[in-house]
Amino acid sequence: MTEKEEIGYDAPTEIKDIEVVSTYRLEEEARKIVPKGGFDYMSGGSGDEFTLKQNTEVWSKKGLLPRVLADVEFPDPSTSILGHDLRAPFIMAPIAAHGLAHESKEAGTARGIADFGTIMSISAYSGAKFEEIDKGLDGGPRWFQIYMSKDDELNKNILDEAKEDGATAIILTADSTVSGNRERDMLNKFVYPFGMPIVSRYLTGSGKNMSLNNIYSQSKQKITPADVRFLKEYSDLPVFVKGIQSPEDAVLAIGAGADGVWVSNHGGRQLDGAPASFVMLESISKAVAGRVPIVFDSGIRRGEHIFKALASGADIVALGRPILYGLALGGWKGVRSVLNYFDEDFKRVMQLTGSQTIEDVKKSTLIDLK
Amino acid sequence: MTEKEEIGYDAPTEIKDIEVVSTYRLEEEARKIVPKGGFDYMSGGSGDEFTLKQNTEVWSKKGLLPRVLADVEFPDPSTSILGHDLRAPFIMAPIAAHGLAHESKEAGTARGIADFGTIMSISAYSGAKFEEIDKGLDGGPRWFQIYMSKDDELNKNILDEAKEDGATAIILTADSTVSGNRERDMLNKFVYPFGMPIVSRYLTGSGKNMSLNNIYSQSKQKITPADVRFLKEYSDLPVFVKGIQSPEDAVLAIGAGADGVWVSNHGGRQLDGAPASFVMLESISKAVAGRVPIVFDSGIRRGEHIFKALASGADIVALGRPILYGLALGGWKGVRSVLNYFDEDFKRVMQLTGSQTIEDVKKSTLIDLK
Amino acid sequence: MTEKEEIGYDAPTEIKDIEVVSTYRLEEEARKIVPKGGFDYMSGGSGDEFTLKQNTEVWSKKGLLPRVLADVEFPDPSTSILGHDLRAPFIMAPIAAHGLAHESKEAGTARGIADFGTIMSISAYSGAKFEEIDKGLDGGPRWFQIYMSKDDELNKNILDEAKEDGATAIILTADSTVSGNRERDMLNKFVYPFGMPIVSRYLTGSGKNMSLNNIYSQSKQKITPADVRFLKEYSDLPVFVKGIQSPEDAVLAIGAGADGVWVSNHGGRQLDGAPASFVMLESISKAVAGRVPIVFDSGIRRGEHIFKALASGADIVALGRPILYGLALGGWKGVRSVLNYFDEDFKRVMQLTGSQTIEDVKKSTLIDLK
Amino acid sequence: MTEKEEIGYDAPTEIKDIEVVSTYRLEEEARKIVPKGGFDYMSGGSGDEFTLKQNTEVWSKKGLLPRVLADVEFPDPSTSILGHDLRAPFIMAPIAAHGLAHESKEAGTARGIADFGTIMSISAYSGAKFEEIDKGLDGGPRWFQIYMSKDDELNKNILDEAKEDGATAIILTADSTVSGNRERDMLNKFVYPFGMPIVSRYLTGSGKNMSLNNIYSQSKQKITPADVRFLKEYSDLPVFVKGIQSPEDAVLAIGAGADGVWVSNHGGRQLDGAPASFVMLESISKAVAGRVPIVFDSGIRRGEHIFKALASGADIVALGRPILYGLALGGWKGVRSVLNYFDEDFKRVMQLTGSQTIEDVKKSTLIDLK
Repeated sequence: MTEKEEIGYDAPTEIKDIEVVSTYRLEEEARKIVPKGGFDYMSGGSGDEFTLKQNTEVWSKKGLLPRVLADVEFPDPSTSILGHDLRAPFIMAPIAAHGLAHESKEAGTARGIADFGTIMSISAYSGAKFEEIDKGLDGGPRWFQIYMSKDDELNKNILDEAKEDGATAIILTADSTVSGNRERDMLNKFVYPFGMPIVSRYLTGSGKNMSLNNIYSQSKQKITPADVRFLKEYSDLPVFVKGIQSPEDAVLAIGAGADGVWVSNHGGRQLDGAPASFVMLESISKAVAGRVPIVFDSGIRRGEHIFKALASGADIVALGRPILYGLALGGWKGVRSVLNYFDEDFKRVMQLTGSQTIEDVKKSTLIDLK
Repeated sequence: MTEKEEIGYDAPTEIKDIEVVSTYRLEEEARKIVPKGGFDYMSGGSGDEFTLKQNTEVWSKKGLLPRVLADVEFPDPSTSILGHDLRAPFIMAPIAAHGLAHESKEAGTARGIADFGTIMSISAYSGAKFEEIDKGLDGGPRWFQIYMSKDDELNKNILDEAKEDGATAIILTADSTVSGNRERDMLNKFVYPFGMPIVSRYLTGSGKNMSLNNIYSQSKQKITPADVRFLKEYSDLPVFVKGIQSPEDAVLAIGAGADGVWVSNHGGRQLDGAPASFVMLESISKAVAGRVPIVFDSGIRRGEHIFKALASGADIVALGRPILYGLALGGWKGVRSVLNYFDEDFKRVMQLTGSQTIEDVKKSTLIDLK
Repeated sequence: MTEKEEIGYDAPTEIKDIEVVSTYRLEEEARKIVPKGGFDYMSGGSGDEFTLKQNTEVWSKKGLLPRVLADVEFPDPSTSILGHDLRAPFIMAPIAAHGLAHESKEAGTARGIADFGTIMSISAYSGAKFEEIDKGLDGGPRWFQIYMSKDDELNKNILDEAKEDGATAIILTADSTVSGNRERDMLNKFVYPFGMPIVSRYLTGSGKNMSLNNIYSQSKQKITPADVRFLKEYSDLPVFVKGIQSPEDAVLAIGAGADGVWVSNHGGRQLDGAPASFVMLESISKAVAGRVPIVFDSGIRRGEHIFKALASGADIVALGRPILYGLALGGWKGVRSVLNYFDEDFKRVMQLTGSQTIEDVKKSTLIDLK
Repeated sequence: MTEKEEIGYDAPTEIKDIEVVSTYRLEEEARKIVPKGGFDYMSGGSGDEFTLKQNTEVWSKKGLLPRVLADVEFPDPSTSILGHDLRAPFIMAPIAAHGLAHESKEAGTARGIADFGTIMSISAYSGAKFEEIDKGLDGGPRWFQIYMSKDDELNKNILDEAKEDGATAIILTADSTVSGNRERDMLNKFVYPFGMPIVSRYLTGSGKNMSLNNIYSQSKQKITPADVRFLKEYSDLPVFVKGIQSPEDAVLAIGAGADGVWVSNHGGRQLDGAPASFVMLESISKAVAGRVPIVFDSGIRRGEHIFKALASGADIVALGRPILYGLALGGWKGVRSVLNYFDEDFKRVMQLTGSQTIEDVKKSTLIDLK
């Protein structure tokens, strides 16, 4: 019996460079080759999918201003965060179960990320083991995202492993103390077709054939500032609190010792009815007031979205679904193609807005559109 | 001749637990099995159905704020109103003619409501008699909604019966002194296929084969503060005025002795062109200023809507159409399934907004979205 | 050769009471029986038809407020204007060429108007002669709308005839000094299939087989305050200036001696890109400040629209296209059916908003909706 | 082998007067006869085509005010700019590669422009040579639009030729230092089917079989105020800076010596996510404060758009795509038909807004619509 037969899930396998006309087109192409349960899980949101749609639609409420006579040529998108130099202001967002998109799982993504040259976020709900992902990363930088166990001893084991694996930061996902109302998954009766080796130690099973609902309920549901302090002290690594959508929580996270604020609404997958993540960014940035770096995700599909996020207070952005679609369509090479697309598109926006450097981008003014 | 043949209306009969992915889907499923005239009557509104649509669409203008690090687990949705302890902040709204949805009529609804454990509102235009409903309720709490007769002696008879039946509050529907412009009913030439035993004493017939227009015109059309006082004094029960859509009328109702304000636009079935009921809630709540409890209905389809209503001043909400769709699809068990859905969905929203108690919900801030 | 064959236009002929569920439905029914060129002429607007659509869509930006405990029963919609007592606050708007809708032409409309009991506005571009219309009106009240000739002697002739016919007011259409950009008419190569006996004296032909463009260009194109004074002095009748869409022009008209301001954008048939007529009403009403009565048209399709117009400063409204659709579908009886519909629908709105009289309506507050 | 076979592009060839009902309809008609690659290149925009759509949709946010009793007849649309008297306030916008629309290339456009009687803008990316265009222009006025070479000696050659050809102004396109993200061109793998004789001196080829991306990257990408000064001093002609979308850049251009500000977002073809060009016009006009004339383009499709642009600060507008559609459908006669359409439509708007002169238009007030 092949592994595919065994797991009953027929993930794509091709490895090739892909042409990226737009990431929206990638989504439509990926839909054709990824099994429906997996595709809906990856692409879907919660409830009415209002927040999911807002995440991408809301960009049009802030206009970019073309600038001319600006003395700009070959704009420089490089920046740095927590000591990492980046060639472009974007990294990989933590996402569970890349194996739904491609048989190479997180190892494929990691190789594409490393080949382009940015930071890989490894999800605690990865379907691949650390050592598998390492092969793809080949020494490249990585951060570790944790869904905590109810048992802190197990959390210590996980942190030990992540640190030994070379993680240089911990991302605490704090917005998922219960699963969002994922209607598509209910309709598909979706369960993961493979296990989650990093967290299986605290699950009643391996993760395989379990629903997200079930897995979340076995994870820690009561997350408090003490957890931030625990992660920081035990790991001795910088800690991001991910899922911040209000100035109040940004202040709370920093007060608890967070080294970075990760603005995200979990890609519209948790609390439906929430504003687009971008809507909250500016007020959060004002509350953070430069004390810690801000990572932004949820809704980045074009270079102009990266520009708008940076101009509204983000230091870097994290890319999620478009990377998975690249992975589905071309394995690690597809991932690299998507990163190259964002790089080129963002540089074009820099040029046309008269921005030579990331500092110029961050000082730009957006236009309120009705 | 069977009863179905006799009444010429083929209501659903099945009794079963149902899976509720969303109440919008229930509506589509119910449409398939409920006779068209009955379904349109239940689901439709007046005029352009502008207000009907606004009732559900307007929720998206106020955003929920995800909160993290909030120290919440197993949120507690219990509350109380007028001395009734409730496990969740919702009750059954008064609705006429449940027999259109299911052959068990109001008795079926009542059993589902009682089994879940909340308050049943019995409509004066019920197709079932008090004693039939009692069998379903099995001692559970009930409020009685009255459409008044033009003749107060008959009103006294009705109040006597309701009180003897165990009603603990009277709901005066004040927004229906003439029928809304129900175009679907005109197109279907809809008449009730069965009588209305509670009010038939003041109709020229039993209610059977009569239109809503006809029935409303035989009911009391001139409703004034004196009617509130009459109901309260004669019944010696607390009285809600239902149909409040302005701060002015809330003040008027309280001045007339009302013990509760019921904010409603009759589910978009009366004055089309009115704002969504939710649009008026906050200003009404300010005018009420805590003097009496506020019940809210018209447009609740998800747990997040309950949250938004409570965060805007409601003490509890009343559920209408979704319950009838549950009744149609699964009889009393279907009703219970819908109530369980709202309970679980609301608790998820509480968790993701960092709300441990109903008091936390009521203190929450919503975000204005454009 | 029958008249139909002779004029090459097959107008509807049926005379019957019609059921009016909504006037939007009437439009769809009329579309089926009125020849395309005529129907497009009647129903269409200019340019993008932006203004045409705005006229009916903009109503939803102002919400009606349901009122309860209001002590209202059998609301009284009667009012008066310039000495005419009206059973309801609406009259017939001046419209050219009713013969496109029904073979009975303006005589059919007039009979329906008279039978219901309100004022007929006779258009200078009527396809029927005064004496034909008189038969329908049977002594009922009438106002005369004038498109002026470039030659004031001919204008005097026309005024003489109108006055002799019994007109009690003159309506000067001032917004049509050149034809709007009627794209539908261009596409249909529409020309009037019959003549215009009242103004044929100043045309190069009878009006038959002429385009609106052609006719307008032969009418007076330079209209000034002096024309208002001329009409008033020569006719010794009150004069309305029709087509007012700004406070400035309302003041200008009153300064020129106008006895009434007629707020209209010609049903979206003249300057496309103009706001909905209703949008300008409130500011015009403030500028008029009660000095003269205000008639409102352009976009009235329901009783609630009448209510909103009166609550925003209009004294009465004029009904246009819905009446023509009634004429097409049922001749004079169809006209009467439409008027009865508006009467009933408006009274329902009065009841549900707690308005006993027109004075109550005019004092009502509308709710700004986003 | 015919030229068509040789270039592998089958451009329309017909020469005839065309009926213009609306320019939107022209676009649909042109779509049927222009090869897809060429049509998409001409009609398309960049990215999501958000800005492209905004350019035409945003007009409806500002309402025109119908004015009556205004004493206007035969309105006069004539004006002047930089010493040129114009019969109407519009000229031809610079556009590359007219040969995509019609085999007569820029010579056809030029003849239509000259026959109507306004200014031709000759693009540096013209597919026709100066001497070919001259035949069409037949002595008519012309401005020259430059995409600069990286080598100023070549720029001098180009300016010499343009000046010798009779150009009376230079238009510096400053918003295209890199190509917009033209997704349609990517999908079509579009390359120009013929060369660009004016700029081929600085390309690696003739322009034929090259993509826009490639051509732009071989043009000067770093444009600064010094370039404005260079063009002005070397040519001794007035210089417009084209692509201004902010008050800041208008001031910068004037400071660099620009003799005119050309407000444009390049027809939505460069930076997607920018506001509609019209959105920025008013604030730019305030910054310019009458110091230099303002030309406006991007989105003009009707006479009412010309009116709105002039009422918001533009002195004249430039017409682009609609002219190309006219060229495709009827060669030089089609171009003339389109110009006549704009002339007539604009005069109608002048009449209906009570505007006798362009000065009246410029003093008009527009109404903010929600």
